[in-house]
Order: sequence, then structure tokens, then C-alpha cells
Amino acid sequence: MKSYRKELWFEVPGRRGFINITPQVEQCLKESGVTEGLALVNAMHITASVFINDDERGLHHDYDVWLEKLAPHEPASQYRHNVGEDNADAHMKRQIMGREVVVAVTQGRLDFGPWEQIFYGEFDGRRRKRVLVKIIGD
Amino acid sequence: MKSYRKELWFEVPGRRGFINITPQVEQCLKESGVTEGLALVNAMHITASVFINDDERGLHHDYDVWLEKLAPHEPASQYRHNVGEDNADAHMKRQIMGREVVVAVTQGRLDFGPWEQIFYGEFDGRRRKRVLVKIIGD
Amino acid sequence: MKSYRKELWFEVPGRRGFINITPQVEQCLKESGVTEGLALVNAMHITASVFINDDERGLHHDYDVWLEKLAPHEPASQYRHNVGEDNADAHMKRQIMGREVVVAVTQGRLDFGPWEQIFYGEFDGRRRKRVLVKIIGD
Repeated sequence: MKSYRKELWFEVPGRRGFINITPQVEQCLKESGVTEGLALVNAMHITASVFINDDERGLHHDYDVWLEKLAPHEPASQYRHNVGEDNADAHMKRQIMGREVVVAVTQGRLDFGPWEQIFYGEFDGRRRKRVLVKIIGD
Repeated sequence: MKSYRKELWFEVPGRRGFINITPQVEQCLKESGVTEGLALVNAMHITASVFINDDERGLHHDYDVWLEKLAPHEPASQYRHNVGEDNADAHMKRQIMGREVVVAVTQGRLDFGPWEQIFYGEFDGRRRKRVLVKIIGD
Repeated sequence: MKSYRKELWFEVPGRRGFINITPQVEQCLKESGVTEGLALVNAMHITASVFINDDERGLHHDYDVWLEKLAPHEPASQYRHNVGEDNADAHMKRQIMGREVVVAVTQGRLDFGPWEQIFYGEFDGRRRKRVLVKIIGD
């Protein structure tokens, strides 16, 4: 069984943002030499997500508005976690969008449906944070 | 390491619906010949989910009402994604219910607790859509 | 390929609660002898979650309040599932927090970011329930 590991680093300039990381994950897969197996892609930080959805700007705006409605940042004082920090809402947004994706690897490619793309979702940005790519298989 | 792949096709007649796909996944596992490993089951479309929960009609009704409350379909104009389409809410519902499940394979069986069943969750139906089953192991 | 399986049992005395199960999963990994691979940790019950986030008491309180807002327990009669039971909300809370995590195993360790810890999330407690740990790799 082959095994491959790489950390990808991202810095989102604002508090929140979505980055399409599919090209970097495809590059990892190429480097891994795995043709049949599974690729795990996960946020290494607990106020960020990795998820699969559409690369469409309007949808990303809608996600941002929607997540803010379900888990509002303000008032920061509504959350007990916010003692000396103000990111409790980010821990919640990340649970809705998810920590990780597992993608099938088939014939050396990410085995995707027509519109699937992998995103890094940042909910507490303005600093360098990491995504882990782990690929196993033959 | 063995590796198995199959696409399952579904067409939900209405906009939304839940289908128990456990028998099809069990059939895949049998075909794979894998006795110890992992089975990934994921929606290949970004307005659908694969999730594990109870096969109980009342609960599915409750899920439908609840998801509609958290991410309402109407008014379609509230979402920027809805330019020429009206499925932004489906992209959100799918994030709550999840894209995929990973199930342990033990002694040739899906290693489930007492009530676990795998569902395809459709949030933008009335057309043929796919689920991917990928199984790796020995 | 090596393969390892263990069930972990938990009993939360109240209806809801979060338990840090990272030490038990690390013990499983040690027993497995796997140094490179993937670890799947999933709730075997459909009113419980396994998720990764921060081991911080204030945040867990915030999660509890937030989940109760998104999927209230009361009034139980609002849910069709609640015929002879009252745990429909638990089936919803579990979908938000997730059924499972997949963790990379690298050099014999859970390959975690700085604050990642694995939790069992109970939403319908006061009885013994199980978590499955399945580890595959070399």
C-alpha cells in the first residue's frame, strides 16, 4: 500500500472566505503515484472547513450570509467561548460545512461528479492555516 | 489491496426525497470481495447527500420540514446563486446532511450499529443523479 | 494491509453531553500497529455524533445552546418521529455535528493540527452506546 502526506498552507485576508483547492489536491495525487485508493483532505484547524460543492461566486456569497444567520458572529458576548477571543461562531460554522472530505481515487484521478470541487472554508482568517492531504492506495 | 467502484443511479420524482440505498451498497460490497477495509459512499452531485440515519417515515418528514426551515426554498430571489436556476437552498441542505459516509467493512459486512441505514438525500430532484461507491481493502 | 477494529462504550448520565475520546482512539492506534493509513471513528447510534473540535468547556456549552436553538427538543409534539419516543431533535443535532471522522495516521500517530481532539457527542443519553474505531493501513 502506498501512502502520501502533504500540508497545504492558506492565508485568507479577511475573517471569512472560500478557496478552491482542487488543483493543489490534484497535484498531490499526481505526486503520490496512487491510482486506486482514497484521498482524505481535512482542515487541521478547528475554525475552518474542507468541503465539496460548486465553484460559483453567487453561491459562496449565499453560504456566507446563510452561515452568519445560523451562527452569528455578533454579539460576541453571547458565546462563553469568547473569553479573550471572538471566534466561537467560527467553531459552529465549521461544523455545518464539515472538517473533511474523503474522495475516491480511480485510475489516478479524483473520482468526481460533474461539478464537484474541493474548497477550503475559512471562518477565522487573517493568519496562516493548514490543510492536510493524506492519500492511501496502490 | 483490492479496489472496487460502482455508480448507482437514482431519480427522485419530486424536488426532495430520501431513498434507503443500503441494499445496493451491500450488493456492491458482495461484488467487491473485500472483507476488511473501508467503503466510501458519496453523492456525485452537489445538491444531494448521502447520510446514515433511521429508516423511519416520520423522521424523514421531520428532516424535510426542518431543512426547509433552516434553508428555505422560497423566496428563490433571496439567493444570488438563483440566476437561471432555483436550487441554492439545495446546496445548503446538502451541507447540513453531508456529502458522504465512510463505513467500516468487517468480515465482509458493513459494520453497522443496530439502526444504521444509508440514505440518498435528494434536494433538487426530477432528474437522474449518481452516487459513487468505492471500496478498498483486502 | 493491516486492519483493526474496536468498539468503545459510553454512557452519558444526562440527555446531552460531550466526551473527549482522543486517548481511547490513540490507544486503539497503538494496539493496531498501523503506522501509515486511515482511522475511521464513527457513532454506531443515530442520535449521537463523533466530531473533531476544541476541548474547551465554554465552547461545549455554546454548542449545546446553539444546537438546541437549531433543533429544539421541546415541544416534542412538533416532530412526527416522536411517537412513543421523544428524540427526534437528537437525530437532527447529530446531522449537524456529523456521524464520523476520518483521521490520517502518519508515523504511528493521529495526524492532528494543534487543537484537534475527537469527541463523542451524545444527544439522547442515559444509556450505554457505542463508537466504532476502524483502522486500516500498513
